[in-house]
Formats: sequence, C-alpha cells, structure tokens
Amino acid sequence: METDQLVTLMEHCGFGARRLSVAANIYEEMLSGEYTKFFTLAGAMVPAGMRNVVSGLIRKGYIDVLVTTGANLVHDIIECFSHHMMGDPEISDADLRDEGMSRIYDVYVGDDDFIKFEELLQNILPEGPGPFTGTEFLRILGSQLEDSKSILRSAFDCDVPVFCPALSDSMIGLQAWLRRQSGKLSVDAFGDLDELVEICYGTKRAGIMMIGGGVPKNFALQSMLVTPNSFDLAIQITTDHPEPGGLSGATLSEAVSWGKISPDAKQVTVYGDATINLPLLVSATLTRLEKKRAGSRSGQ
Amino acid sequence: METDQLVTLMEHCGFGARRLSVAANIYEEMLSGEYTKFFTLAGAMVPAGMRNVVSGLIRKGYIDVLVTTGANLVHDIIECFSHHMMGDPEISDADLRDEGMSRIYDVYVGDDDFIKFEELLQNILPEGPGPFTGTEFLRILGSQLEDSKSILRSAFDCDVPVFCPALSDSMIGLQAWLRRQSGKLSVDAFGDLDELVEICYGTKRAGIMMIGGGVPKNFALQSMLVTPNSFDLAIQITTDHPEPGGLSGATLSEAVSWGKISPDAKQVTVYGDATINLPLLVSATLTRLEKKRAGSRSGQ
Amino acid sequence: METDQLVTLMEHCGFGARRLSVAANIYEEMLSGEYTKFFTLAGAMVPAGMRNVVSGLIRKGYIDVLVTTGANLVHDIIECFSHHMMGDPEISDADLRDEGMSRIYDVYVGDDDFIKFEELLQNILPEGPGPFTGTEFLRILGSQLEDSKSILRSAFDCDVPVFCPALSDSMIGLQAWLRRQSGKLSVDAFGDLDELVEICYGTKRAGIMMIGGGVPKNFALQSMLVTPNSFDLAIQITTDHPEPGGLSGATLSEAVSWGKISPDAKQVTVYGDATINLPLLVSATLTRLEKKRAGSRSGQ
Amino acid sequence: METDQLVTLMEHCGFGARRLSVAANIYEEMLSGEYTKFFTLAGAMVPAGMRNVVSGLIRKGYIDVLVTTGANLVHDIIECFSHHMMGDPEISDADLRDEGMSRIYDVYVGDDDFIKFEELLQNILPEGPGPFTGTEFLRILGSQLEDSKSILRSAFDCDVPVFCPALSDSMIGLQAWLRRQSGKLSVDAFGDLDELVEICYGTKRAGIMMIGGGVPKNFALQSMLVTPNSFDLAIQITTDHPEPGGLSGATLSEAVSWGKISPDAKQVTVYGDATINLPLLVSATLTRLEKKRAGSRSGQ
Repeated sequence: METDQLVTLMEHCGFGARRLSVAANIYEEMLSGEYTKFFTLAGAMVPAGMRNVVSGLIRKGYIDVLVTTGANLVHDIIECFSHHMMGDPEISDADLRDEGMSRIYDVYVGDDDFIKFEELLQNILPEGPGPFTGTEFLRILGSQLEDSKSILRSAFDCDVPVFCPALSDSMIGLQAWLRRQSGKLSVDAFGDLDELVEICYGTKRAGIMMIGGGVPKNFALQSMLVTPNSFDLAIQITTDHPEPGGLSGATLSEAVSWGKISPDAKQVTVYGDATINLPLLVSATLTRLEKKRAGSRSGQ
Repeated sequence: METDQLVTLMEHCGFGARRLSVAANIYEEMLSGEYTKFFTLAGAMVPAGMRNVVSGLIRKGYIDVLVTTGANLVHDIIECFSHHMMGDPEISDADLRDEGMSRIYDVYVGDDDFIKFEELLQNILPEGPGPFTGTEFLRILGSQLEDSKSILRSAFDCDVPVFCPALSDSMIGLQAWLRRQSGKLSVDAFGDLDELVEICYGTKRAGIMMIGGGVPKNFALQSMLVTPNSFDLAIQITTDHPEPGGLSGATLSEAVSWGKISPDAKQVTVYGDATINLPLLVSATLTRLEKKRAGSRSGQ
Repeated sequence: METDQLVTLMEHCGFGARRLSVAANIYEEMLSGEYTKFFTLAGAMVPAGMRNVVSGLIRKGYIDVLVTTGANLVHDIIECFSHHMMGDPEISDADLRDEGMSRIYDVYVGDDDFIKFEELLQNILPEGPGPFTGTEFLRILGSQLEDSKSILRSAFDCDVPVFCPALSDSMIGLQAWLRRQSGKLSVDAFGDLDELVEICYGTKRAGIMMIGGGVPKNFALQSMLVTPNSFDLAIQITTDHPEPGGLSGATLSEAVSWGKISPDAKQVTVYGDATINLPLLVSATLTRLEKKRAGSRSGQ
Repeated sequence: METDQLVTLMEHCGFGARRLSVAANIYEEMLSGEYTKFFTLAGAMVPAGMRNVVSGLIRKGYIDVLVTTGANLVHDIIECFSHHMMGDPEISDADLRDEGMSRIYDVYVGDDDFIKFEELLQNILPEGPGPFTGTEFLRILGSQLEDSKSILRSAFDCDVPVFCPALSDSMIGLQAWLRRQSGKLSVDAFGDLDELVEICYGTKRAGIMMIGGGVPKNFALQSMLVTPNSFDLAIQITTDHPEPGGLSGATLSEAVSWGKISPDAKQVTVYGDATINLPLLVSATLTRLEKKRAGSRSGQ
C-alpha cells in the first residue's frame, strides 16, 4: 500500500487519523496553489532525522519562508561532516558525560563533533563586523556549507530566507560570542522584521506548516499582525495540547481571534510525534502531486 | 512510496519514528513466527474506524487472543447495520442531545442506531440462563452477526476467544440487565480465567500488541502471573505517558519487574494516536510479509 | 497560607488554576448539599498514597458510591499489613525482578507482600459458593479487614457500596480463580447493575468526582443512561486529553450529548496529576466546610 | 491545613506528589543557601495570573537572573494599566475577532488594551539609537513602568537582569520595528551573552527554577556550557514529556550529559500545570522559610 492511499483511507476515520487526512488535503492545496509557503520547525527535528525532509521540501520549491530554532541549525551544520548517533534514552547521563557524549533523547552527539562544529563555524562566520540581519547572517553560513542536503545550504541555493529569532540561544550564538572576544560581529535583533513584514505584505494567499510550537510558531503567526493579511491555510503537528494554555499547544482557532489566521482559513492540528507524522504527510502529499502531474502528462 | 519503505527509513531516525520502525520489526517477527498472538484494544477504536483493521488481522490468523472493552464491542455490533457519522468535536453538546446524537470526540451515533442496537441485542442474547463465561457469551453474540467485517463475527469464524473483563461496563451489560428483568441470564465474572490461564500455560512463545491501556492491557499482562511464562515480544501504542504512574502509560520495562514480560523480551512503546500508528504499522508489516512470501515463491 | 486561601486566589487566574478553583466551588456544593455523591478511582492511586484521602472521605460521609479498579483494592488490602516502598522510576527492572520487587512507577511492592496478600485473601474470600454480586463480594472482604484506614473496611463500616466492574482483572480475580480450583466461588458479572440502577433511580440530585478515567468513569456515567436522571455536578481530575478520542480524556461536555450529565450541570475538568490535585482540592474544600461550620456555631 | 504541611505530607506519596515535595525541599535549599538563582518563565504565565508570584519572588531577593519570553513581558506591561479578562476557551474565535478580543486559552485581551500598550511602549522605548543589549533595553522599559507589581519594574528596582533572547518575537519587537520606520533603534542580538557568561563564571553555586521549556530553558541551561560551572540545584515544572524528544520536555538528567547540570545536582521535574504547581510550591517554600526564621528569632 502506498502512503497516499493509507492517508486517503483515513478520511473516513475519526480522531488523529481524520486530522492527518485533512492535513494532507490542505497541504496538497498549499503546495499546488499560489500560496506563499511558510514552514516553522521547532523541537530537535534535525537530530531526529528530519533534515532531508526539510531540505528536500526547500529544493522542490515547497518552502518560501523558513522559521526555526538555533539548535536545528547547529545540528544541520554538524550533519555536514558527521552523523548523529542512535542511542538509548535510558542510560546513565553521568556516564555519557564521562564518555563525552551529549544526549538528545535517544540521539547522541560526541564532543569531537562539537569541536569540529566550532572549528567549522569559526571559519564560516561572517568576516565583516555587521550589524547583519539574522537572515543575512544565516545566508552567509549557508553559502559556505558544501552539503546539498543541508537545510541552510538548500535555503541559500533556493533563495529561501531562514529566520531564527533566538539566534543567541544556540551554539551558533555562543560561537559568535567567542568571536566577539577578538573582533567585531553583530546581528541586529530587529533586523529581520523588515524582510518578514515585506513578505507578509506582499503575499496574496499564505499557507503555513508548523512543526512544533515555540518561537518559530509565534514568530511566523505574529508576522501577519502588522499587515492586513492573514494565513489562509494552516497545519500544525504538535505533541502539545491546548489545556495548559501555552502558545505551543494553542489551537489554530485561537489564532483566528488574533487575526493571525483568517476566519475562513482551512486549518487543522495533528496531535502527535512529528518524526512520524511529518514524513507520512509529506510522502502522501508529494505522491499525490506526482500522480496528478503524471495524470496531466498522459492527457487524463 | 510504500508504507513499508517509509517505516524502514525511520530506523535511522530518533524519537517516535525510531520506535515505530522497531515496532514494525517486532510485529513482523511476531506474525511470521510461532507466537501465541495477543491483541488488546482499548479506547474508542471501533468508532474511530479501526474495526476493519482488527477484524482483518483476525481473519488473516494474526490474532489468537483478543481482549477489549465493552464499548468497542457495542460499536462493532452497531457497525453491522449502520455507520458512525463523522462529526465535529467543537459543537454544542446540549444541541446534540436535543438532536438525539451521542458524541465520541468527532464521531456521532444517532439515537435510532442505539434503538436498533437494543432490538438486535435482545434478539441475539443467549437464550439459556447461564452462567456463561464471558468468552462463551461473546461467541454466541458473534455467531449471530451477519457482517463478515465484524470483530465479533470474525472472532467466531476463526475461533478466536474475545475477552471483555468489564462486560457490565457497556450497553451490552445494560441490555443484559434489562433481559434479567424478565428472565435469567448470567455471566460468571471469573469464568474466563480458566480459558485464559490455559492459553497462557500452553504457549511456548507469546507476543502481544496493545492498543491503548486500561483493563485490556492489564488483564492480558497479568494473565502470565499465574504461569511460568511471560511475553517474549511486546508492542504498545498509547497516548499515555509513564510519569502520572497509571498502568495505561506504564513502560513495558515496568512489566518486566512483575514478571509479565520477559527480561529478554523485545519490546517497544509507540507514543501516539493509534488511529494513525496502528494502520501504518499493520500496513507496513503486512506488506513486508507479502513481499517475503512473493520472494520465496519466486525462488529468491 | 492555608490551602483553601490558595485555591480561592486561583479564581482570578487562567488555565489549570482556574479549573481547580472552579472544582473546589463545585465540590463544596456537592459535599454540603443533598447530592448522591459518586466517586470513581482509576490509576494506581492507592500505591501512590491516596488511600487515606479516599477512606477519609468515606468515613466523613462524603462518598455514597465508590467505583474503582481491582488493582486499587488489591493495594488497599496490602496496606492493611505493610507499606508500599518509595522507589525510583529509573532503575533496571530486570534487577528488580531478581530482587523480587514489582514496580509501579516510583513505588515498589515486594514479593513477600504479595505472598501475605494471597494468604490473607484466601482467608477472607467468601465461604459460600455464590453467585455473589460484586458489591456483596467486596463487602465480605471489607468486613474482615482490620485496618480502619482501609477503603474496603471504611466502605463496609459506612455502608458504602464499592463497585469494581472488572473484578477478574486483578490479583483478587486471580486468587478467586485459584480458590475455584478446589471449591466453588462465583460472582455474577451483571449482578451489580440492580443495585446501581436503583441508586441512580433513587437519586434526586447527583454529583460525581472522577479521579482518572477508565472503567470506573464509564461505569458510573453510563449508569444514568437507563434512568431519567443525570449528573448535576461533575468534576474530573485526569492527565488524559480529549484529542485522542478515548473516554478517559473525554470532556464532561461530551457526556452531555449522551444524557449522562445534565446540560445545566456545573462541571469542570482539572488536567493534571491527581496525587497533587486531589489532596489539594479535598484539603481546600474540607477546610472551607469546617470554617463554615465554625462560623455557624459562633453565630455568624 | 497550611500549604507547606500538605506538601510535606506528599513526601510519602508516589508519582507527582513525591516530585512536588522533592521540589519544595530543593527550592527551600536554593532560597536559603548561597546560590545564584536563575528563574526561567515560558508559556503564557502572566496572562494566566502568575505575574505577582514572579515579581514577588524578585522583590524578596529570590531571583537573581530572569529569562523569559517576549509575550510574558508584553502582558506584564499591559497589566500595568489594565487587567486580563477571564474568558471561556470554548467560544467562536471568529466572533471574538469581530468583538476585538484576542484569546489566550481562557483569558481575553481587548484591542483597546493593545492600543494602549502601543502608545505606552512608544513612550518608553529607548530614545537613543543603540545598539543596546537586550537586558539594557528591558531595564529602560522597566524603569519607566509605575506598577510595583510589574515584573520588569521589580527587576529594575532590584537590579535583576531580564534576558529575553527572542525579543523580536513579540509585540515589543513589532513596536521596535515600527519605531525604526522613523528613527534608529537597535538591539545587539549577541549583546546579552557577555553579561550572562560573566554571571555564570562568577557563580559559586547555581540553582535554577524553570517554568515551562522553550527558549528560556535552553538559554539558561546552555549558558553554563562556556564556563567550568554547572547547575547544582534544578527544578522544572512542565506539561511536556520526554518521549517526543524536544528540549522542553527533556529530563534534567539529559542536561547532565551536556554538562549543563552537575552529575551531583539535586534535581526534579514536576509534570503538571504551572498555574497550580508554581503557586503551591512557592507558598509552601516561603511558609517554611518564614517558620524557620520565626523559629530562629524565638531562640529555637
């Protein structure tokens, strides 16, 4: 059975299955229509193996604006020269420390990889003093990475801006701080907002796919607040729930009250682990698009 | 992309994706080896559309012992003559009451279906006074259902015992109570344990697939306590977490301390919505088994 | 600061705090008014230390009907002669097995306690062959326990029926099975429903406090279905969420669509760990009731 | 019953109750010892009513470093002139939009309050062009707020630095962007790291209380990475779980593998709603400290 068939069958189910099938319908419309496509990425998705899914979407033209966390970019850079190790979540973390291993649930990163990361980063940090905008800063990093599977490199190649509003909250930030001990290097904390607002103003119709919540979700959604526009299509995949009240688990309906998402928007939340649901959703949607194209080509 | 390919790719991921791929490996071993195959089903899985998945597994010989809730059996019987309606979880429940609709999250059942259910059940309840064992009682019901997709009918056809330890906690229980106002009908609350213990004693190797927790999970796991055996393969799909301490979210490792699961068992928990993960897991596993068989047939 | 002051302050908060303060208001009304008071208990609440809270409520006359799981009753009996041990949730369960320890998250029970439990139970199991109703069966057990803190003993002393719809799903069930190898002993699976329905018919106004979901929640709520009545006050404390669709996490509003809870009912769900929220809620509510009584006595 | 008595009783319980009592012991040690006290605040805690708890802790000297989100600071400023409204989480968000109400789960904010916020902010934004560090920028805002209950004002009064690594991800960011259309105003994205690293280097012993996860948790924890120090005491209150793999739900043990938390640290996670658990924990801990002080004063 193909993934798109499975997801289509889920239309007649309840609970999460129905939500996933609705998400596939919305994502198909988003990717095949004239939408400005936002994609937000929170949670340790790159260590968990979602890097190729995201960079693949960028290279296929399915992401116009990426908003993510510093950690995902750090691990994107590490994957340029090494691979995250598959580990065990139930283990002595004190022993891991002794062995020079840092754990991200069931994924390990060795100290040697962080050392290589630091060397690489010191080589590719912008020469000039700045102030750079965040997206400029990340374009400079991406332009110097040589791995075509890299998210940052793919974004550079495809001219997709990468927003990382909490850049200092990452090892990239710590390395920038280190560089500043011996030279000038600055990023303007509000510098990105011009580019983002311009995109939001310019969009006719906007769609957004949100993986996890956090700063990426809020930053992308709030960007519409200073424009007359709002999102017309919205999908989120999250393990958070609405009841604790935080934005990460907030319903997309709540965003309607703020004017971030249109009252007429098609929107759905898939509650579940994005490492399962994102690949399944992307695989099903891309297969549908390919079948459609094959259908058009053969004159159907 | 086929579902088994997707799940196989997940072996190299972290978090939920890795768990799902491990589950597929364990399930493949369970279904292709000489295991007594337990299957437990909690949560409103039949209203959510999982009926065909379960009855399909029974008819393929992939379930030897089924433990479930009364509610799933009630809705299995309703599906023999009607279909659950797809609804909306955000709606006025007072209005639904006025319209004669009962809601199960985003699935509705009409009062007329419950009336038909009651009529049907009064026709198929055992004539004799009993006491029946629970599995006998359910075999009698199953034998009179005419829908080959029914879980109870499939179990009857394939001689699979269906255990429902909390039978009175369902509309089947309420209908039995109603019958008792005019005649005798009883089920022996401990009557099933002979059959269950015999199965557990007789098993050489045992595997278990658990959907949700609750009574079905506990009943199946505890059955091993009075035997020298324990489960050798175990998978659970659940939205519960270990930290609140309840059995539904307990790790399978915890069951090792009780002697319910072997210390050497292969076991994994997939945290997530079973309406997505069960069909994906079953589809991937069955496709693998078919490919293996096709491979054997063609001499590979 | 006293617990009732803290909970009263939470009226002006959002999220869980507001829910807890609403729960205290509803519980105060339930305990001080003419309500038939249902209490359902799922999850390993007795091993976690909630035994005294529950038996205390029974002895104060604040529980009229108790619905619970077999496991909670097993551990209630064990506490009559021993204490659960405080353990560590992150430990080798294989080692625990070797040491004869069974783990319930961070609570341990030793094999010797289970042996004592078995001996005690064989002594207090009903002599006669039955069939007993479940509540009769549990009254007989409770009458022979000598610990005034015991839930079963307190219920016996206060003539509170204890319903345990899945009695066979527990070590009590396994011990009954063992007894049946040498003598007759049976419980009528539907035997309790007469008593329960009679209570539900007889109630003028009904209130329910639900700890966790599972069979206890469903059994108590469905009992109203065969009567013209429904619950007027309802509180649930749960770590489950509505989105996975199972009954355990279902909103109380959903129960309105079924007619289990009145459309005009005061109801609230507190999402969170019952080992924290139940004692806090009970402490705050009882303190309020005491202050009220003290106020009346002093003529205010 | 007083809150500290309740929490002390929980030492003998399991699950969440035990965790909460351990947290109280750790927090008591943190507040009464020579620890540099970090406090991180994520989630919509100010709209939910936690503002006074946090500003109270600051004014009592119990917070040395605060890391939070832009949204909490926006709502801290709004509370200087208005109050969040208590609303209903189940309501038409399209209707709310028409009425000019923005919803945060069960809390509402009116458009007029946002307009007043904008006016106020334009008045108190720094005059100079900068670049400011983030903490300088927030000190300037705090110094001009006239509400002693304000978190920003309390921090200014007590010389507590407030770190907000994703400052542009908030309405403060949007207002700064607006100001920049007509004048210069910039914040150096890496500017805070000097101050933070200096604090981390200077600390002899460090304790951290984390409310929610997100950027505040990561930023505070990672700050130790560039120093030889690590946290000696750590508490987190969160509704996230470890299994989805994100940092917000990561165990504190995981942070040991990174060297952020000492292998010998006393640490605990309380899984649950912070609007309940934080006030309960703070109330219990402060009462203990007061009782201790009263005891010392009376010569005991």
